[in-house]
Amino acid sequence: MEFDYEIDPHAIERNSFAMIRELADLSAFDAGQAQVAMRVIHSAGDPALAAQLRFSACACDAGRRALAAQAPILCDVEMLKQGLTKRMLARPAQCFLNADGVSAIAQARGETRSMAALEFWRPHLAGSVVIIGNAPTALFRLLEMLAGDPSLGRPALVIGIPVGFVGAAESKQALWDCHQTLGLECITLLGRQGGSAIAASVCNALLRCNRGELY
Amino acid sequence: MEFDYEIDPHAIERNSFAMIRELADLSAFDAGQAQVAMRVIHSAGDPALAAQLRFSACACDAGRRALAAQAPILCDVEMLKQGLTKRMLARPAQCFLNADGVSAIAQARGETRSMAALEFWRPHLAGSVVIIGNAPTALFRLLEMLAGDPSLGRPALVIGIPVGFVGAAESKQALWDCHQTLGLECITLLGRQGGSAIAASVCNALLRCNRGELY
Repeated sequence: MEFDYEIDPHAIERNSFAMIRELADLSAFDAGQAQVAMRVIHSAGDPALAAQLRFSACACDAGRRALAAQAPILCDVEMLKQGLTKRMLARPAQCFLNADGVSAIAQARGETRSMAALEFWRPHLAGSVVIIGNAPTALFRLLEMLAGDPSLGRPALVIGIPVGFVGAAESKQALWDCHQTLGLECITLLGRQGGSAIAASVCNALLRCNRGELY
Repeated sequence: MEFDYEIDPHAIERNSFAMIRELADLSAFDAGQAQVAMRVIHSAGDPALAAQLRFSACACDAGRRALAAQAPILCDVEMLKQGLTKRMLARPAQCFLNADGVSAIAQARGETRSMAALEFWRPHLAGSVVIIGNAPTALFRLLEMLAGDPSLGRPALVIGIPVGFVGAAESKQALWDCHQTLGLECITLLGRQGGSAIAASVCNALLRCNRGELY
């Protein structure tokens, strides 16, 4: 029993992105957006995701500048932190889902822990890169907080890509519909699909662009 | 600006799985397999994945027994470990990707670190639950190791769901084609799609079944 497959990591990466360029319709994107789109597609193995991806006008530039300036990176789940390429991060990403007090807040309010954890984001929000890859309720709560308090610092970029069947598509549509009113730059993937790996891939693509590692 | 959305975690979970039962074609699966299929679909937000999911004859039972017996859980990447529901694990999962020596082996052989890491799996393989959620080369190497050494202990279950454009579909097809010859039980998702979140969701579903937490 023999298997014939590519074992060289550089060839695998080169061939992967050549195939993605061939299979995906990237015509809606500028060069920087295309880098992000290709890594999203790579993370999920699904060229069709390109059609659901949305970028606000200056999203890539705002995200790249914030990351280069070592802005806080706020994640809704630990798995997302784990998906960020550590060698490229100037400072560790933060996740407050398991912080002391989150469960108590969630239980007292009858809400998800994911949205309760956003209480701990407040002091870090201004100029941050927010990455939501799991919980629609976290994205909705973020929009509520920003809409309800104009003095609350705006993130430099919101990567809003929660996944699932209850609220995911709705929360991402709300982000896309409201981002200009709320003064936000954002990257999102409309529809039900999403998740930590896809959300992390967006940030990883921006980090790579900052290092000149282009495909 | 107001947003209307469900904040109760129990209602979100209940409604999610009700929607999945409505949207997905689960007719190919028995009751246990359907539990796994629903969590896979939940993790990716994609009901169409049901059509690509494959179970060997006794995969769910073999996996559930191994997990109940606190078998080793071997993961190809750290993100996958992070995706396993900790409260349900009797022992921590293991990942050797960043173990001392892996990079040296990979460089000496001109191969990926993911496949080099499998050298460290040998003493843990017998009776284990193997979960590959990222690297096609890790799945190919596992099949090579098992085919080349009949005395090497067999995993109780191989959850083989790597993702991507180079080797992912091929490695999963090879697992599916060879599992009987190699004496393996397996769960896989044919095609390019896959990843840590999906692979972890399979194991989480089996852990839930063992606790009687059914949808």
